[in-house]
Amino acid sequence: MAVIRAGIFGGSGYAGLDLVELLSGHPGVELVFATSSAYEGQPVPGTSLRFVAPDKASLANVDVIFLALPHTASARVAKRGLDAGIKVVDLSADLRLDSAEAYSADYDSAHPHPELLAAPYGLPEINRAEIAHADAVATPGCYPTTTLLGLFPLLRQRVIKPDVPIVVDAKSGVTGAGRKPSITTHFAEVYGNLLPYKVGRSHRHIGEMEQELRKIDDRVGPVIFCPHLLPVDRGLMSSIYLTLDDNVSSDQVHDVYSEVYDNEPLVDVLPLSEQASLKHAVKTNKCVISVTPILERYVHVTSVTDNLRKGASSQALQNMNLMFGIEETLGLI
Amino acid sequence: MAVIRAGIFGGSGYAGLDLVELLSGHPGVELVFATSSAYEGQPVPGTSLRFVAPDKASLANVDVIFLALPHTASARVAKRGLDAGIKVVDLSADLRLDSAEAYSADYDSAHPHPELLAAPYGLPEINRAEIAHADAVATPGCYPTTTLLGLFPLLRQRVIKPDVPIVVDAKSGVTGAGRKPSITTHFAEVYGNLLPYKVGRSHRHIGEMEQELRKIDDRVGPVIFCPHLLPVDRGLMSSIYLTLDDNVSSDQVHDVYSEVYDNEPLVDVLPLSEQASLKHAVKTNKCVISVTPILERYVHVTSVTDNLRKGASSQALQNMNLMFGIEETLGLI
Amino acid sequence: MAVIRAGIFGGSGYAGLDLVELLSGHPGVELVFATSSAYEGQPVPGTSLRFVAPDKASLANVDVIFLALPHTASARVAKRGLDAGIKVVDLSADLRLDSAEAYSADYDSAHPHPELLAAPYGLPEINRAEIAHADAVATPGCYPTTTLLGLFPLLRQRVIKPDVPIVVDAKSGVTGAGRKPSITTHFAEVYGNLLPYKVGRSHRHIGEMEQELRKIDDRVGPVIFCPHLLPVDRGLMSSIYLTLDDNVSSDQVHDVYSEVYDNEPLVDVLPLSEQASLKHAVKTNKCVISVTPILERYVHVTSVTDNLRKGASSQALQNMNLMFGIEETLGLI
Amino acid sequence: MAVIRAGIFGGSGYAGLDLVELLSGHPGVELVFATSSAYEGQPVPGTSLRFVAPDKASLANVDVIFLALPHTASARVAKRGLDAGIKVVDLSADLRLDSAEAYSADYDSAHPHPELLAAPYGLPEINRAEIAHADAVATPGCYPTTTLLGLFPLLRQRVIKPDVPIVVDAKSGVTGAGRKPSITTHFAEVYGNLLPYKVGRSHRHIGEMEQELRKIDDRVGPVIFCPHLLPVDRGLMSSIYLTLDDNVSSDQVHDVYSEVYDNEPLVDVLPLSEQASLKHAVKTNKCVISVTPILERYVHVTSVTDNLRKGASSQALQNMNLMFGIEETLGLI
Repeated sequence: MAVIRAGIFGGSGYAGLDLVELLSGHPGVELVFATSSAYEGQPVPGTSLRFVAPDKASLANVDVIFLALPHTASARVAKRGLDAGIKVVDLSADLRLDSAEAYSADYDSAHPHPELLAAPYGLPEINRAEIAHADAVATPGCYPTTTLLGLFPLLRQRVIKPDVPIVVDAKSGVTGAGRKPSITTHFAEVYGNLLPYKVGRSHRHIGEMEQELRKIDDRVGPVIFCPHLLPVDRGLMSSIYLTLDDNVSSDQVHDVYSEVYDNEPLVDVLPLSEQASLKHAVKTNKCVISVTPILERYVHVTSVTDNLRKGASSQALQNMNLMFGIEETLGLI
Repeated sequence: MAVIRAGIFGGSGYAGLDLVELLSGHPGVELVFATSSAYEGQPVPGTSLRFVAPDKASLANVDVIFLALPHTASARVAKRGLDAGIKVVDLSADLRLDSAEAYSADYDSAHPHPELLAAPYGLPEINRAEIAHADAVATPGCYPTTTLLGLFPLLRQRVIKPDVPIVVDAKSGVTGAGRKPSITTHFAEVYGNLLPYKVGRSHRHIGEMEQELRKIDDRVGPVIFCPHLLPVDRGLMSSIYLTLDDNVSSDQVHDVYSEVYDNEPLVDVLPLSEQASLKHAVKTNKCVISVTPILERYVHVTSVTDNLRKGASSQALQNMNLMFGIEETLGLI
Repeated sequence: MAVIRAGIFGGSGYAGLDLVELLSGHPGVELVFATSSAYEGQPVPGTSLRFVAPDKASLANVDVIFLALPHTASARVAKRGLDAGIKVVDLSADLRLDSAEAYSADYDSAHPHPELLAAPYGLPEINRAEIAHADAVATPGCYPTTTLLGLFPLLRQRVIKPDVPIVVDAKSGVTGAGRKPSITTHFAEVYGNLLPYKVGRSHRHIGEMEQELRKIDDRVGPVIFCPHLLPVDRGLMSSIYLTLDDNVSSDQVHDVYSEVYDNEPLVDVLPLSEQASLKHAVKTNKCVISVTPILERYVHVTSVTDNLRKGASSQALQNMNLMFGIEETLGLI
Repeated sequence: MAVIRAGIFGGSGYAGLDLVELLSGHPGVELVFATSSAYEGQPVPGTSLRFVAPDKASLANVDVIFLALPHTASARVAKRGLDAGIKVVDLSADLRLDSAEAYSADYDSAHPHPELLAAPYGLPEINRAEIAHADAVATPGCYPTTTLLGLFPLLRQRVIKPDVPIVVDAKSGVTGAGRKPSITTHFAEVYGNLLPYKVGRSHRHIGEMEQELRKIDDRVGPVIFCPHLLPVDRGLMSSIYLTLDDNVSSDQVHDVYSEVYDNEPLVDVLPLSEQASLKHAVKTNKCVISVTPILERYVHVTSVTDNLRKGASSQALQNMNLMFGIEETLGLI
């Protein structure tokens, strides 16, 4: 197997640092560079590299680039990469939506390169085939990954009651808010607190979640999404409450999940009586799911990931493995 | 004003210790004793007393007793207190349910004194008048208090859509699990974790919550209740998701809350754009509520308390103030 | 008693906010204004005031100002206050050192008003008399307060072995680093960590500590000071290791502390077998000290405070009480 | 290379669980069993095994046993293992001291098998040769490992000032206190606290530390040891303060450390200006050390480990590698 030469744009943020760690441990990858404006010249942890400024990173010596950049900045580098014949694994929002209109509505800016929006949505358990044939992939973030994997089996079976709201009460560790200091992420503000934010229908990732949900079952109702900032560094939980259609009863639901995920190496479905907790997923590359029947037509699903792994960096690597035709879980289990 | 002489049964647990602190600071109360089997003979923090064994506490020199005891033990002491002509503020589950059948179903034991079940449910914002005339009051715990106060204005207006499940995703600090050591409350197990438990319809307090909800609006649907153990010491959040009836729209709901709670000194309703967080309530004696319209007939309510204060000890003291006809908030604001 | 009208400069930092809370609860004080550049126009928590810009705060209607400002800025406002005939309680470093030379050495800037350096060092348990007669007082910060109170009884007795280094291993909660966001105070950087910084002889407050130590016993050796950032919000511990002179043995030391502090309402000396922990002091206005004889001439002292209270705001208020001739602990116990 | 078949006694405590994880990932080891009285029959995390009761674990099919048992229990199983011709890696205190008298003084019980005390002290960076030839090794715990590695270079050079106390202010995460629930490890007691315990000369491991120190330099003074319980799950820091002899100055000390540890793969010495923090070592198998000259003859050393890894399980595995003549760091880096 030829070694895949990789570069990271945005290597000093939290997702970037986990990507550095995972790529360094991947037996088929050589990490060639990692960029950082803020940490230029400083050592890249666990490697013999030093961070380079983004404009000094040459695309000439790499086969793939990972983009952990702010939106719009990411699209511009993605375009350069594709033009140079390199594969692109994007971790930003820039390739995720299906239309430039949706993008400008959610991100308050015109999309720099709308042609990139044809990239597949990089959730391997749902879109494995498309990812394997793509030159650029839009890796989804922590909230959509965790929520979509928590809903996918029921969507695929088309047994969620149409038009009824799906409640997603989500909780995220602080690394999900990025590494840039702000009063919101100040230790003394977060410590001992639990803070809901962007409640209801106002979080940017709702459009993306609903876009993907409806590709699988276009009858599902709106997502009521309430994220909370948890006083921990890592881990994300989506607590999902949903109503079933009349053709399935809640005690059949666990079997549906088991069947869909039995062969998925990076999704675990817990036994019926066990509840998924943050510790099941933190510092792993997995999504862990528990399912609880409540009423005859009502189900509770808890889906957890490490927001920096299956919710970002390890999923990006899983996509890379697929794009290069190598074992999907190489470097991940 | 004559001084009220008070005794505490169960003074060394977390609720008991907060009660000691609050009673010590109350200008109209003299704390006469606090019992503890485990800490007998040791100093009662912040006082000149020492803990006495429960069977050595004399009821002869007190006007009121607070019971922070396990269930069934509490009922027995309550009976002794009432027989001795003393007022009783119970913090256990023993006086909360309306029938001995419901009690034995939820608590797996016969009720020692079913006649005590006539005691009013001690949520002053809902049952102020009954409390004021009672000799014994059943102070509700943290989950029911926080959830019921979060629902009360809509229940009173009878605008919750009948028969539709009400989702309550709740999160509690670790003191809610008591002071007795267990693997569940071991620091290293809780640290960095978030753990759902007794999911759906299995938590003991659901029966109590539904009993009280239906006294106000008997048409409401079942409560879907999912508590989580949070890695903090204090604070409780009930995140409530509910569907409105056709005769009200979600943008009218904030006014309903404001109107109901405007004169309540111990309940704060935040302005529309602000979200209630744990820090709003921890180490206060208040319940703090935020309301967010989501869809035309769909609303999100966040209700927070300090589980040891408005969820236990300060509410007990609020009840005592009412029972003795003194200012309801004395010693509390 | 006439009400003391007070203003706070720098009211939205962590020390400023605790000062707001304490002054609001003080029965003899009216809080007239609190300044903040960052939060101008926003409500001052727990009051009916709004933060005003520093240059809009009028000195005409106040009797005393508290200065929780950066160094050099503080001296300028202190000067204005004294010129206007108002008393000044400074919480910055600007009035603490005895000479302009020492100030410019430690703070890399010329002192704007060296005449202010005559202000007494505001540690009431050591300098009560001078404080009571001063118009301006330099309230010391958390590290010097906690360390000096931990050493004072032995200094006063002159029983510390001359010229031998005194080891102070100190640990501080994150609010000690201020409220301005930085990578150092980012939740995800602090969480699960313990970080030594400014180790040895490099921390700015060493000069101030040694200046005050030597006023009491000019023979003591250098202070070896190693502060650590603790993953908690509040609380400061100075762990002191010292060698005794030949004229005292370590088993006499506890008596020395008890005698010196027995009548001090804001310093507690624990019984011999008990160790002072952060919880003894957090959210109180006290310094709590434990003393352990180790070898015949070697003693360990643990001194703890809440860094925002006895290490800042409550000590400032204690000074104000002294300066106005009212009960020293009013509003503090 | 033949596979080494290993068994663990005491596999469900925190050190035992880390040992399970490390042995499972070791390319030359097959984990045959793990015992647990409390978790008998439950799955051993990350393996296909289930915990067995200690008396059901057969020594017939293993080449080595790891003992993470309470003291005295450990010695008995060690004896059985040696009698059966199996190698023994002990993590308890039972093989660490040099005499039965010292053991009974520190552990209040007669040593069950004093002949086992001939086992070498398993700190590979100090005793590599003896470990390689032993059938039983006494793996030291977290405090002695971290402290001894922090002192070793100066001991070996014999440049610590004789007879002067060495101050060790240590801080440990809560897993160091074991997994058995107690009020000391209850989340709500530890959260937000920092607690000194067994201060001075009273901790059990002081005898062991001084025994090993004096084998290297018998002139060193007493160790003043003050451990603290930190509100984190993992990580241990020894902050060491010491006086140098006249034949070395503090600015030469960093070179001494670099020279001694340059070829040690599991000890990192940081550059002069950088301080070792918990995060340098947590979830690694390394000891990380920083050195700061303070006065001409005074040095501060910070030494950190993960208390469950280099302070327990990974050091045990390092010893096993040596005892079987395979690469010392196999499975560890």
